[in-house]
Amino acid sequence: MFIRNAWYVGAWASDIKDQPFARTILGEPVVFFRGEDGKVAALEDRCCHRGLPLKFGAIEGNNIVCGYHGATFNCAGKCVAIPGQARIPSAMAVRSYPVVEQDELIWIWTGDVAQADPAQIVSFPFHQEWPHLTHTQHVKCDWKLMIGNLMDLTHLAYIHKSTIGGDPDAHTTAKFEVSPSENGVSFIRWLLNTQPPQMYVDAVGFEGRIDRWMEFEFTAPGSVKQFTGALNVGEEAYEKGPRQGGFALRVFHNVTPETKTSCFYFWSGCHGYRMDEPEVTKTLFAGLRKTFEEDEDILEAQQASLLRKPLPMISTVHDAAVVHAERVMSRRVKQEAEAVSNVVRGA
Amino acid sequence: MFIRNAWYVGAWASDIKDQPFARTILGEPVVFFRGEDGKVAALEDRCCHRGLPLKFGAIEGNNIVCGYHGATFNCAGKCVAIPGQARIPSAMAVRSYPVVEQDELIWIWTGDVAQADPAQIVSFPFHQEWPHLTHTQHVKCDWKLMIGNLMDLTHLAYIHKSTIGGDPDAHTTAKFEVSPSENGVSFIRWLLNTQPPQMYVDAVGFEGRIDRWMEFEFTAPGSVKQFTGALNVGEEAYEKGPRQGGFALRVFHNVTPETKTSCFYFWSGCHGYRMDEPEVTKTLFAGLRKTFEEDEDILEAQQASLLRKPLPMISTVHDAAVVHAERVMSRRVKQEAEAVSNVVRGA
Amino acid sequence: MFIRNAWYVGAWASDIKDQPFARTILGEPVVFFRGEDGKVAALEDRCCHRGLPLKFGAIEGNNIVCGYHGATFNCAGKCVAIPGQARIPSAMAVRSYPVVEQDELIWIWTGDVAQADPAQIVSFPFHQEWPHLTHTQHVKCDWKLMIGNLMDLTHLAYIHKSTIGGDPDAHTTAKFEVSPSENGVSFIRWLLNTQPPQMYVDAVGFEGRIDRWMEFEFTAPGSVKQFTGALNVGEEAYEKGPRQGGFALRVFHNVTPETKTSCFYFWSGCHGYRMDEPEVTKTLFAGLRKTFEEDEDILEAQQASLLRKPLPMISTVHDAAVVHAERVMSRRVKQEAEAVSNVVRGA
Ligand code: FES
Ligand code: FES
Ligand code: FES
Repeated sequence: MFIRNAWYVGAWASDIKDQPFARTILGEPVVFFRGEDGKVAALEDRCCHRGLPLKFGAIEGNNIVCGYHGATFNCAGKCVAIPGQARIPSAMAVRSYPVVEQDELIWIWTGDVAQADPAQIVSFPFHQEWPHLTHTQHVKCDWKLMIGNLMDLTHLAYIHKSTIGGDPDAHTTAKFEVSPSENGVSFIRWLLNTQPPQMYVDAVGFEGRIDRWMEFEFTAPGSVKQFTGALNVGEEAYEKGPRQGGFALRVFHNVTPETKTSCFYFWSGCHGYRMDEPEVTKTLFAGLRKTFEEDEDILEAQQASLLRKPLPMISTVHDAAVVHAERVMSRRVKQEAEAVSNVVRGA
Repeated sequence: MFIRNAWYVGAWASDIKDQPFARTILGEPVVFFRGEDGKVAALEDRCCHRGLPLKFGAIEGNNIVCGYHGATFNCAGKCVAIPGQARIPSAMAVRSYPVVEQDELIWIWTGDVAQADPAQIVSFPFHQEWPHLTHTQHVKCDWKLMIGNLMDLTHLAYIHKSTIGGDPDAHTTAKFEVSPSENGVSFIRWLLNTQPPQMYVDAVGFEGRIDRWMEFEFTAPGSVKQFTGALNVGEEAYEKGPRQGGFALRVFHNVTPETKTSCFYFWSGCHGYRMDEPEVTKTLFAGLRKTFEEDEDILEAQQASLLRKPLPMISTVHDAAVVHAERVMSRRVKQEAEAVSNVVRGA
Repeated sequence: MFIRNAWYVGAWASDIKDQPFARTILGEPVVFFRGEDGKVAALEDRCCHRGLPLKFGAIEGNNIVCGYHGATFNCAGKCVAIPGQARIPSAMAVRSYPVVEQDELIWIWTGDVAQADPAQIVSFPFHQEWPHLTHTQHVKCDWKLMIGNLMDLTHLAYIHKSTIGGDPDAHTTAKFEVSPSENGVSFIRWLLNTQPPQMYVDAVGFEGRIDRWMEFEFTAPGSVKQFTGALNVGEEAYEKGPRQGGFALRVFHNVTPETKTSCFYFWSGCHGYRMDEPEVTKTLFAGLRKTFEEDEDILEAQQASLLRKPLPMISTVHDAAVVHAERVMSRRVKQEAEAVSNVVRGA
């Protein structure tokens, strides 16, 4: 059900300040904390003495001190002090998780530690280059439904009618290219010679019709890089590229399962236009937030409906990328299950 | 547990305006909508594409358009349009339910469509003749407990002490005639030469003692017609009839299961006195509402208690109508179960 | 899981006034009421007619009248009246529980009635002698976790850092004597030559260092008597006793299971200093309340954590009293289970 051998976003780096920060990741209680050396650690959020979550504890140096009876754990989860007791039983330890801080994100690995290779983390250099604001949504749906939402754009005309929807016809008659890969899928959708949505006009002052693209690149299990942009008709964005100038928006979406039916949705909105205007960043953020909250409402309603009675899914021609993403996710879940069963059989 | 081959009230006609209206009926998610032809349709409230409830959609003409990716369904549940896709798979359909609009009520049938005969619907012409107001209560109890409440009047002296209770002794020493029928039970209770409750005095100005009747007619699964009235002692309501004039109140009660432990309680209060005074209708309504909310509190507490531990029911002499109603409901549930098993065996 | 053959506190005597008072005790719905003779009765809170909890009823004389159809039960649970029906079926009865009012507490027995000996009730005469205030907390944890909290004092330095914690070092270097008994465990902890906590200074005006003791006596299943006090260094509290004067506080803790994962925590705080100043009683009470609410937060978090995944408990040297108390509780649970199975086998 989960893909365990993978890096997931656990938090924004800025979430982990001077207090323990707790969150359930792939069904496991995790507490993050930043030691005085500035490094972030992630431990099982349950003291091995009497079970109190460590989030009720206090950070001391690079350790965390349990809030019930003061057992102290280092960033590797080893108990290093029990008040008034010299000998520390070797069983006195909690699980620790590999953690990497990169591109303003805290990445965590909950699977087989031997396979945790930081080189596999999806990089997003635009957090260093383009102005942006970030947000976390707690969405009560299976993370796979959220990926399905990101892999399909026909919904813009319906869910986002009043925000970024634009001309409904344009969406379904768009040029649409899907490129499956081993561990994901990309697609680009072109809306040529179309009416700009109000948000684009507000952003860069388009006066006439535009050529508009939306490029999405999914890497399993949970990362989607979005590059949405538009140039005036005549600037040959489609025919020639490079697609520079005009309206240019990059969104980094990351979806991390919390439970079977809930997930965290981390996203940032970065803009490549009017890059020195903080008001523009704020306006963009407000627009994205409104849009993604529209998705949240729909996804939670969809999840509740599917919980009530699962659906033999019927797909349409517009579901090409969704279907490929679902295939990648299923294959990885299956591979892990087989690897586990091989281990069990001693193969 | 449910009687499926039966008409149930799904909503008041006035509930179904220009927006989809969703409700769980006998455990199934249903969306009602009124097309531009004025006809009410009832569909399974779950799009067959990706499961979003259709209540998030929009009515267009006589169709409903899904709020996620725009699949369009007609009032028979057939998909008639998929944005940007010419061919519509034949599996692309949702269940539709037979619906009849009658006496200001929307009746729905969730059982075997072949047996859905509108002639079986319990009619209530007083909605055309007597002034009235209507209400819907969402009660967290098994619908059968609500029927049990309506089939027993000894509770008036206890639950409704402060509203319509009247003289406790009168209730238990009343003349009480029960008339079982094939598909229900009727009873009439006479309180002769009794003190009028304040509500009756306020309504028609009784100055002395009255002869009072309460007549209830239950038709399985969920309809109860109530005729409550009173005449001055000496007008021979009991001995002769017809029972005209004085205090005359008709209530149409309809109970529809939502889940095993919750139901919708639709009721209207119609008065045959001072029929051209809207204030009288309002006062009557306020009194009934207070009374029926007293029942709601008790029924929900009873349900919670029985869920905790079911009861080997002990009945008293006053439970004659309750016991008969329970017998009718059980028999119909059993008959349906047998019919299903005969079909399965190919009998 | 529960110890049934035992007296538990069901309520404070002052809780049972002129209305029925309902509470779940060891998983069973119980209604307490005080008849006009002043005696408290405890009945199963579920009318045997149609299941309404009797708490919705009314007290009449020494009986309780059901709020639905008026069945009337005496303090032994026997139905003594059914409105309008002369003969009362002998099955018409609800369970009654042995109840004793003592030391301002209502004690209840939910086990085998033949074994209910009031002499076993833990007495607490200080309710007659020392000024005090009382409180009830509804804590969402297994009652055994609450006992574990009371049997361990190292937590003072962590949970109660800001209230009664005092000097952390003192707690773990304290003299600590544990005295196990057949049906409980006692311990006394001495903090010699220590800084007084602010609360003690405010109470009795200590000017220098003090010798401080905390004595706890647990009697299974749920009673803990606490005697906390302090004298000035030099008054030889530890070496000689008797420990009179100075700071002297007695708390009677009683824990009663509600469900597997919730309990009622009844406590009183009695002071032996400045006994004629009501303001002192109030200040003490406010301090205890703040302290015990800190425990409540931690215990509920601990319970939630253990429900998620139970812990193979690792104990430290400070857990001596906790471990003994757990052993007593387990043994009594086991004894009852064996007694039941002997009865079943006819042994
Ligand atoms: S629960 Fe953490 S130290 Fe006791
Ligand atoms: S879920 Fe209804 S159209 Fe996709
Ligand atoms: S439920 Fe108590 S008298 Fe009927």
